[in-house]
Amino acid sequence: MSETPIPEAVAHQTAHFPEGLALDCGALVSPLDVAYRTYGTLNAAKSNAVLVCHALTGDQYLAETHPVTGRAGWWQAIVGPSRPLDTDRFFLICANVLGGCMGSTGPASPMSPGSDRLWGTDFPNVTIRDMVRAQKKLVDHLGIERLLAVVGGSMGGMQVLEWAATYPRAVFAAAPIATAPHHSAQNIAFQEVGRAAIHSDPDWRGGRYWEEPGLVPAKGLSVARMVAHITYLSEQALTRKFGRRLRGAPALTFLEDVFEVESYLRHQGSTFVRRFDANSYLTITRAMDFFDLAEAHGGELSAAFQGTPTRFFVASFSSDWLFPTSESRALVRALNRAAANTSFVEIASDKGHDAFLLEEPEFHAALGGFLNGAAERLGV
Amino acid sequence: MSETPIPEAVAHQTAHFPEGLALDCGALVSPLDVAYRTYGTLNAAKSNAVLVCHALTGDQYLAETHPVTGRAGWWQAIVGPSRPLDTDRFFLICANVLGGCMGSTGPASPMSPGSDRLWGTDFPNVTIRDMVRAQKKLVDHLGIERLLAVVGGSMGGMQVLEWAATYPRAVFAAAPIATAPHHSAQNIAFQEVGRAAIHSDPDWRGGRYWEEPGLVPAKGLSVARMVAHITYLSEQALTRKFGRRLRGAPALTFLEDVFEVESYLRHQGSTFVRRFDANSYLTITRAMDFFDLAEAHGGELSAAFQGTPTRFFVASFSSDWLFPTSESRALVRALNRAAANTSFVEIASDKGHDAFLLEEPEFHAALGGFLNGAAERLGV
Repeated sequence: MSETPIPEAVAHQTAHFPEGLALDCGALVSPLDVAYRTYGTLNAAKSNAVLVCHALTGDQYLAETHPVTGRAGWWQAIVGPSRPLDTDRFFLICANVLGGCMGSTGPASPMSPGSDRLWGTDFPNVTIRDMVRAQKKLVDHLGIERLLAVVGGSMGGMQVLEWAATYPRAVFAAAPIATAPHHSAQNIAFQEVGRAAIHSDPDWRGGRYWEEPGLVPAKGLSVARMVAHITYLSEQALTRKFGRRLRGAPALTFLEDVFEVESYLRHQGSTFVRRFDANSYLTITRAMDFFDLAEAHGGELSAAFQGTPTRFFVASFSSDWLFPTSESRALVRALNRAAANTSFVEIASDKGHDAFLLEEPEFHAALGGFLNGAAERLGV
Repeated sequence: MSETPIPEAVAHQTAHFPEGLALDCGALVSPLDVAYRTYGTLNAAKSNAVLVCHALTGDQYLAETHPVTGRAGWWQAIVGPSRPLDTDRFFLICANVLGGCMGSTGPASPMSPGSDRLWGTDFPNVTIRDMVRAQKKLVDHLGIERLLAVVGGSMGGMQVLEWAATYPRAVFAAAPIATAPHHSAQNIAFQEVGRAAIHSDPDWRGGRYWEEPGLVPAKGLSVARMVAHITYLSEQALTRKFGRRLRGAPALTFLEDVFEVESYLRHQGSTFVRRFDANSYLTITRAMDFFDLAEAHGGELSAAFQGTPTRFFVASFSSDWLFPTSESRALVRALNRAAANTSFVEIASDKGHDAFLLEEPEFHAALGGFLNGAAERLGV
């Protein structure tokens, strides 16, 4: 496999910060680029901005055709006039995370401007808070003092929580969705399998695959994507999609895909490597694994939100076993202990973790209601 | 990595069948070796034999030090005088499955006697029923007409069900534990990830790694073991064992294991490759994936047991998400429809699928009661 993950021709909308960013680990990433997209119009008071945070393998192409895959934006279902992320009312901002590979500074970026030497595995460890700090620089750069809302699911929800904890005065409303205040041992374990698969691929070359043009650890990254993809679906969703349906002839073969679910997973794996950098995958999964908001606040989660002015909308999905409802409930209890204005909904769905990205009318209505209520409170 | 998975010096107790075995796929495996171990003494009436079926990565070393790993037998906890598998009362037989790598004929066996050419990926696809047919030949060879009981968990439980369906008159009592009458789409998907990891390892060499002495696809097999291992544990068990405990210094590093769960999984993966053949892993996981007892009986599971004289003991564990209680209940409903003598217990445990191998006193008491009851009925 020798495809370049990101075509050179993709021109990202990018904010450039020559001063760079100091990270939690002590390293300085300089310069810092934050690639982003916006949708809708910022009003004169700059009071209608909604920051949308993407998940592990998402990017800034929230609601438009993706420049690499040609597919619809990852949350296009809820963006547009009269939709929950209403572009007639809100100015949406979506930025590629620090450590990502769609234009923001990450392992695939040059170590210094114009250099052929990429960061690769020398890219420092980033945390969810580092990602949020990079987004804050973008929001400041856009002249926005307070975001009407910060919204995101999965790792995006971790960023929402970190925004509310770190910049409470800059977040009027926060919607952490299908997420948790820390990554569980099981989730760490699944991500470790993915990382081990990448490390095991000889084309990873100890992280230095970028030294050979076009070389990517496609097999390892593909296996990582396969295992992650299973965790995004519920058992019911997998069964509904595939059951135990055989693919083609019933002849028993040793090497071929025999079940439809196998072909589907292999396809998921192989399309992913076209658009995602393996060292970015290592960097971002590790950031998720390190996320532990309680630990960062003396072991007491409610301390992260003490006296917060932010209003919260917490949503979980009943069949999500990656970020189960029990973790959202623990978050809600902590928000209650902090006397935060909090609403919580568990959406009945059999689609698993991916439900937050899919057609879930009850979820869309609840999120839309929360955002519109916040907008009305601010007179937007 | 260049360790030979199975030391040459291990001498297995083996039954040799020169006529071979005709498989479901139409192929003939000839000759057929079935490696096995026995514990306890066969009585004069040959009425006290209990066949124990092992799971995916188990073998015949049920209750003694393993010749490769030096660790205790995989079900030693329940074998011995006054234990559920009471060696004062029962004659226990445990055979390595067809397709395995501990002495029974499998992909690591010579294609013909004395040949240097191993089966490798030319080994035909085997089914759970083929495994059971091979065991039946061993049981016949030992002169046993009817087994007092067939007992097994996970893939061992699949074999128990197949024994009862295929040879009902030869099975007085059957104990399928932590198992299901078919493999779910989710389970197939997880096994496909493991197979993809093996296929991706260049040392697998399209299955021909055996051509180079000592070469094994250690990295791929290790990743396969890691992902499987996560599915054997409950979220609670992983959290109790590791939580989010950091390993050593809190310094953020890019490449090292940082969480204890990572080190544990890597260790699980690397010890496994010392004792297991990768092509066996491919063969046996595929056999599990193909298992669908209802489909083999016109789509109606109860038809597999219609008029059965066998008594059944079905057991599941509350935190087992690989073979959840719902699947055992579906099995029990089918047994009820077939008017089979059936008892069912769901054991409250937070240890996940692995619970069936661990200290679970309530489970041990229930299984022991069932087996002793069956023995008393037969006057053993």
